[in-house]
Amino acid sequence: MAENKLTYLALGGAGEIGMNMYLYGYGPVGDQRFILVDVGVTFPDMDGTPGVDLIMADPEFIAQRADRLEAIIITHAHEDHVGALGHLFPRLQAPVYARPFTALNARQKMERAGLDPRQVRDAPVWPDTVEAGPFSIGFVPVSHSIPESSALVIDTPAGRIVHSGDFKLDPTPLVGEPWQPEIFEEIGKKGVKALVCDSTNVFSEHPGRSEASLIDPIGGLMREAKGLVVATTFASNIARLRTLAQAAHDAGRTVTMMGRAMNTMVQNGFAAKVLPDFPPLVDSREADSIPRENLFILATGSQGERRAATAQLASQSYMGFQLKEGDTFLFSSKTIPGNEKGVARILNQMSERGVRVITDDDHYHVSGHANRPDLTVVHNLLNPQNLIPMHGEHRHLRAHTELAQGAGRHGVLAPNGAVVDLTGDRAEVIDHVETGRLYLDGKVLIGALDGIVRERVRMAIRGHVTVSVMLEADGRPADRPWIETSGLPDPRGDLAERLEAELDDALEGTKRSSLRDDGAVEKLVEKTLRTTCDELIGKKPVVTVMINRFE
Amino acid sequence: MAENKLTYLALGGAGEIGMNMYLYGYGPVGDQRFILVDVGVTFPDMDGTPGVDLIMADPEFIAQRADRLEAIIITHAHEDHVGALGHLFPRLQAPVYARPFTALNARQKMERAGLDPRQVRDAPVWPDTVEAGPFSIGFVPVSHSIPESSALVIDTPAGRIVHSGDFKLDPTPLVGEPWQPEIFEEIGKKGVKALVCDSTNVFSEHPGRSEASLIDPIGGLMREAKGLVVATTFASNIARLRTLAQAAHDAGRTVTMMGRAMNTMVQNGFAAKVLPDFPPLVDSREADSIPRENLFILATGSQGERRAATAQLASQSYMGFQLKEGDTFLFSSKTIPGNEKGVARILNQMSERGVRVITDDDHYHVSGHANRPDLTVVHNLLNPQNLIPMHGEHRHLRAHTELAQGAGRHGVLAPNGAVVDLTGDRAEVIDHVETGRLYLDGKVLIGALDGIVRERVRMAIRGHVTVSVMLEADGRPADRPWIETSGLPDPRGDLAERLEAELDDALEGTKRSSLRDDGAVEKLVEKTLRTTCDELIGKKPVVTVMINRFE
Repeated sequence: MAENKLTYLALGGAGEIGMNMYLYGYGPVGDQRFILVDVGVTFPDMDGTPGVDLIMADPEFIAQRADRLEAIIITHAHEDHVGALGHLFPRLQAPVYARPFTALNARQKMERAGLDPRQVRDAPVWPDTVEAGPFSIGFVPVSHSIPESSALVIDTPAGRIVHSGDFKLDPTPLVGEPWQPEIFEEIGKKGVKALVCDSTNVFSEHPGRSEASLIDPIGGLMREAKGLVVATTFASNIARLRTLAQAAHDAGRTVTMMGRAMNTMVQNGFAAKVLPDFPPLVDSREADSIPRENLFILATGSQGERRAATAQLASQSYMGFQLKEGDTFLFSSKTIPGNEKGVARILNQMSERGVRVITDDDHYHVSGHANRPDLTVVHNLLNPQNLIPMHGEHRHLRAHTELAQGAGRHGVLAPNGAVVDLTGDRAEVIDHVETGRLYLDGKVLIGALDGIVRERVRMAIRGHVTVSVMLEADGRPADRPWIETSGLPDPRGDLAERLEAELDDALEGTKRSSLRDDGAVEKLVEKTLRTTCDELIGKKPVVTVMINRFE
Repeated sequence: MAENKLTYLALGGAGEIGMNMYLYGYGPVGDQRFILVDVGVTFPDMDGTPGVDLIMADPEFIAQRADRLEAIIITHAHEDHVGALGHLFPRLQAPVYARPFTALNARQKMERAGLDPRQVRDAPVWPDTVEAGPFSIGFVPVSHSIPESSALVIDTPAGRIVHSGDFKLDPTPLVGEPWQPEIFEEIGKKGVKALVCDSTNVFSEHPGRSEASLIDPIGGLMREAKGLVVATTFASNIARLRTLAQAAHDAGRTVTMMGRAMNTMVQNGFAAKVLPDFPPLVDSREADSIPRENLFILATGSQGERRAATAQLASQSYMGFQLKEGDTFLFSSKTIPGNEKGVARILNQMSERGVRVITDDDHYHVSGHANRPDLTVVHNLLNPQNLIPMHGEHRHLRAHTELAQGAGRHGVLAPNGAVVDLTGDRAEVIDHVETGRLYLDGKVLIGALDGIVRERVRMAIRGHVTVSVMLEADGRPADRPWIETSGLPDPRGDLAERLEAELDDALEGTKRSSLRDDGAVEKLVEKTLRTTCDELIGKKPVVTVMINRFE
């Protein structure tokens, strides 16, 4: 019988920040048993994925081996860790384990997808474990920005792996458990074969700051502001929601929330009893009846999302409520690269309204991820034989690998698709499997390489010309072609007409025998229209040809 | 006769960083004479302007009064100040004045547009002036990042205006003239009615740094790098090109350039004799024959542009030349908001190749614009009666206005379209005129609000369905409708067929009399297809209907 191997394979998350999905295998190659850690999404943009609703890792590799998948483990309730569960579960079909608050969110994902929420089971806290085939999985509380975030201790017959999840070294996170180095020290004592570790903030040179460091500056702002104060942050940054709400409450302000995602998160927090001391909230429909100087609004949309409360407040109003000169708006957040223009649009709209905007992320925001020096602290506490960076773009993984190597550790750069063998002392990449992305497009999951979105991007750049050609069975044109253009400049108002005339000439000038074949007609039409359009207006459109033949 | 008025009106640039275009008027309202300062562009993106080639201010207001336009003044040769000249000159038809190097670039824009380059005239340096109707215009050398950058002294019968252009307070700019406070002090002595001032860096709290401060860090990098060094910056940042090339040359490296825009700029610099001491350049086709450790490459594409040399070097090769492990790549630039994702794509590709990438813009880049404290220095030197911030988004203009007001000055927030009366001592906004943007889309200038680009964006988000419907004259369907979909998911491969069947049913089930009118048929078809598509795949596509009626 073949030798048992312990392997690590990132299907998503090791090539981007987002869409986390990591696979651990144990057993003889070809007959390994698996656990999948996190089933997250990442978000589309107009640049490469217009019209797409969500992006997630393609689970094809494990879907083909779903009968050997023992469990799906969710580390915490952020969308980039749990957001794809409802969409991908049908291909995976394995019990899902998460701590209670995370499980509550995961069950909602299942329900929304019409799946059985009982597939999601509450996991205990380390040192208790979940048993899944050859794996024994412990959920170790870590500080992050949402309650019940967990690192995982994964014990296998070939040794112990620590999968960090998202974490920071915060002794006072205000929500969720604090960072407890003694637990990690204890875990490390038994020998850690590999630390698979979050790389998000590897380029941040200074030690991370605690959520508690925000109490004073945000408190000061709440007290000093003369009018209304509104703040935005990630809807799922429950720690920050509490910090902001508490500061407002302490300053005598009534707290309300605008935006569905935020309400859901906080309600789930109440339901799971992980927010025992959240200040009282009033319904946002009552906001108008409260004096502005006594009001504080938490609003969704810190990344400039057009439909979220912040964008609507900036451009006009949200559910009838408007911003005014003298109001203060706080971005208690960091703008994620790619969202700068959307955020700037909002800042300018607020400037036009005379709203005072504060975007100073050094004073009013702290990250939920471990910075570079913090990573070294964890490396040293666990002292793993191997360090495998995850949750990062390639450059993050490389920098994290080099950080480990610089300290004399064995760092393994393993992007999505690299199969890492952890069986021996020294981990190494032994194989590469195909990975990819799926897009949720409307209700349908499509492959990133299916060409559907590429066709939309081409229409967006080039415009679209549709042609209806009517031919007799023998190839003789039965009528002039008919052309409709979409998204093309038409400076003289006669573009379609001129294209029709040119195409008519081309068809009339072609041997009838060549027009008997639809493929040949299509080629001729496309070429004629692209060339003519380019000459007339300097654009080479996407062309759709509809050939009607009369029998 | 009506009273003479001196007015300022931003047509572009006071609502964005880019597409600068400012209009000064003098004379009786309704019969004023004008000069236009700068005719710049800004750049499109996939988010809002897919497929667009360039964006510029709509000159409609002055185009309607072109017979009263005395001159077009170009402050310097950057694209956001001169890039639209060839496209808009036909609507303006007035002599263009610029200093010789700028004029050379401006003439090339004219020639490329098939216009007479002799419309562009060389302007002298202050205290000599250009006379244009009631305006006397002096070009005052300022430090920026391109040779012959100028502030303008605009003397009128109603007083003196200083238009800052783009500038920084750099005593050692390495290229172009240094900052000369004594000239500004002198100019201020005669009394300045208004300073119209660059706001780009109003949010940068520290005094700006000199180009010369880069010599040591960049020199060190060139000497210490073991292999090839490549650097990118804006093609038009001639100062930086020289700083980088000189440092490489001093370190014993042969210098070459990759990218058309950069070559053009530097050749123009040689032609205008403004780059007397630029190190020798070798043809990039020779790069392969030079030992990598002795080579330095300047590459275009610091903003991640997909077709530029940097992106091509990162993804594969540029003109046959490839990057390798051990090479060093320097971004001597700042990433403009909105370009982060494109730049990150390149950083990750370089990481995959093992290229060492340096993006530290604190050490290897300085801005070409005056920072907040520098702005105060200029305010104080000129001591204007009125301060009008320009070249900024609304939030920059507001912050700059507030900076002036905080120092007891009269600051006027005048975004694009606000007509400011400068006749009296205290400037005020007296009118608002319509302004807008034009897009160069292929060869055609279209209005931003024409709906053409919006239609492309809609197709990109929703996909496109084209329908050919054949009806008898009386409304009876002559055949089943024919549908083609573009950019829509088709999970079962039968989407068009199912849409056709649904539409056929809808047409058959409709009274024939209702199908006699094309408009009614279109509405029915659109509604049926949107609803059915939404049910089947969750997308509501753009629908184009082609109705063929048989007579």
